[in-house]
Amino acid sequence: MIDYTCSIPKNRYERIVLGHGGGGKLTQKLLSEIFFPAFSNQLLNQQHDGAIFDVSQGKMAYTTDSFVVDPIFFPGGNIGDLAINGTVNDLLCCGAIPRYLSAGFIIEEGFPISDLTRIIDSMSQAAATAGVTIVTGDTKVVGKGKCDKIFINTSGIGIIRSGIDISPLRAKPGDAIIISGPIGEHGICILSTRESLGFETSVKSDTASLNEMVNNVLEEIPDVHVMRDPTRGGLSSTLNEITATAHVSIELQEDKIPVNKAVSAACDLLGLDPLYVANEGLMLFILPEEKAEKALRIIRQSKHGNKAEIIGRVTDNKKAELSLRTTFGQKRIIDMVSGEQLPRIC
Amino acid sequence: MIDYTCSIPKNRYERIVLGHGGGGKLTQKLLSEIFFPAFSNQLLNQQHDGAIFDVSQGKMAYTTDSFVVDPIFFPGGNIGDLAINGTVNDLLCCGAIPRYLSAGFIIEEGFPISDLTRIIDSMSQAAATAGVTIVTGDTKVVGKGKCDKIFINTSGIGIIRSGIDISPLRAKPGDAIIISGPIGEHGICILSTRESLGFETSVKSDTASLNEMVNNVLEEIPDVHVMRDPTRGGLSSTLNEITATAHVSIELQEDKIPVNKAVSAACDLLGLDPLYVANEGLMLFILPEEKAEKALRIIRQSKHGNKAEIIGRVTDNKKAELSLRTTFGQKRIIDMVSGEQLPRIC
Repeated sequence: MIDYTCSIPKNRYERIVLGHGGGGKLTQKLLSEIFFPAFSNQLLNQQHDGAIFDVSQGKMAYTTDSFVVDPIFFPGGNIGDLAINGTVNDLLCCGAIPRYLSAGFIIEEGFPISDLTRIIDSMSQAAATAGVTIVTGDTKVVGKGKCDKIFINTSGIGIIRSGIDISPLRAKPGDAIIISGPIGEHGICILSTRESLGFETSVKSDTASLNEMVNNVLEEIPDVHVMRDPTRGGLSSTLNEITATAHVSIELQEDKIPVNKAVSAACDLLGLDPLYVANEGLMLFILPEEKAEKALRIIRQSKHGNKAEIIGRVTDNKKAELSLRTTFGQKRIIDMVSGEQLPRIC
Repeated sequence: MIDYTCSIPKNRYERIVLGHGGGGKLTQKLLSEIFFPAFSNQLLNQQHDGAIFDVSQGKMAYTTDSFVVDPIFFPGGNIGDLAINGTVNDLLCCGAIPRYLSAGFIIEEGFPISDLTRIIDSMSQAAATAGVTIVTGDTKVVGKGKCDKIFINTSGIGIIRSGIDISPLRAKPGDAIIISGPIGEHGICILSTRESLGFETSVKSDTASLNEMVNNVLEEIPDVHVMRDPTRGGLSSTLNEITATAHVSIELQEDKIPVNKAVSAACDLLGLDPLYVANEGLMLFILPEEKAEKALRIIRQSKHGNKAEIIGRVTDNKKAELSLRTTFGQKRIIDMVSGEQLPRIC
């Protein structure tokens, strides 16, 4: 076995240097000292150009997401667990049991190794919680000022449960819409941690993987039509995408949409509409109305779901519009956000 | 159907703005005008949180790679086809038939849309050449100065051929080592395009997907032991990884290693050893010696393989070392590169 550690002074490694991304001894050192111990599993340990595993006949889901959140550490999580939870939840939205993840890192020269270790540890824990394995990865290092600290891409593979058919196309007039918890917490948390904005809040990111909740619902109610996690662009963008894809309209009840007081106050202060603020631990369920109460009970009994609500329904209005019935009974059209409300939220 | 184009002045879109990564109308516009037309396929068009497809029982390979090459356009290719070819070749190295790719983009605010279009078109063509489909993707935009133009992550899934078992662990004493072409072209090409270095060369990047070559070899010789593409860190790093993983030694014959004159000259000028310079269109084959001549013939008849050579063999030396028998008959130990010889080469 080659000793990759020889002749390299130890104190160079308090920070990432370009050589950590060079594919040579330093890359091997980073892998063997930080990545492999944290993510250790039989497939990753093959040290092949890719992971190789058995699959059974059936349907598979495949997804990818890059994470560029700023700041990288925030109340409730960091870029590492966010990168795991985000991809896990995207697989859940496909009706899949999340199984294998890839992780691609782009790291800025000079990035503290201690911060990298914290991030990797969070990823390892989040993966264990979600029951997924990080089986293949890649690390690149770019010069100082050529990226902002660290960017992480995760892709993921999941196995679709037999008898499950989740798709935005299946949203049907009469369907009920459930949100699994109060909206806007991740976005407000991230904004509050940006020093220049000068406001403070107790709001934590809601980042979480929602396997248990989704499993519980699908076991009892396999005929869920659509699941989506309303992340970037918030509830409004996700529901607008669904109305456009499925050619249906959706009407929400303003007084049913759960928003915590602190989020509401921060939105007032910043002139934001919580419908457009990002979430990282919420799931939208669209399903036949007659199953909605049962689903709501199951979601509320699940971790991360105790504040779930039925917030609206799919209508047969042909305009493919998302609207809000306000507390005063008026109807307001909720458009998709046009520009960028909150940059680098995930 | 919602009209995402309304009320947004057309001339804003000569360059990427933060809103293109916001998950709202501008993101949809970017997807519908640039990404979907180029990558159009049934799975991507599902517009789900992930792609869903059927799989048969068997073995699957899964890999990921981030591309941060600087410059993004270079003779012979650009960051787009590089990102496709790199991941395709990694799947081939696992003995897999490459099938589905993901693509994750991180783009700097202000990046010209015309450059993005060129890159996407190259990706589309490279994917078609390699017989893979881009089935899921993600786009993030970061502020000016927060990344260097564009970074691309691709991950990929392939189906392992039945009866094929490719693994670095299978390198065995007596095996022959074949390289599919002359080394160092990608690395020297990239260096030559960096203005500050002040030298010019006619060397083009060798970036290419090697499906045809690998297919031809495996069809006739299923008992190939190891395949690897010697990219970052060059031939020496890849072979050093194999000696360390398989606990075998490898001896190369200096006079057998193909190096084109222009690469040789550039390496002399820059004080580089071509053994450490990156390649993006080469494949290493390690296989039983008695099959080597046949494999060489097949490789030379394949596209991108006409300059292939048998360059060395695996020995039973227990030190797990990579050595070079020089033209003068001396033995030189070839160590893994320590620091970063060529930053941002891929």
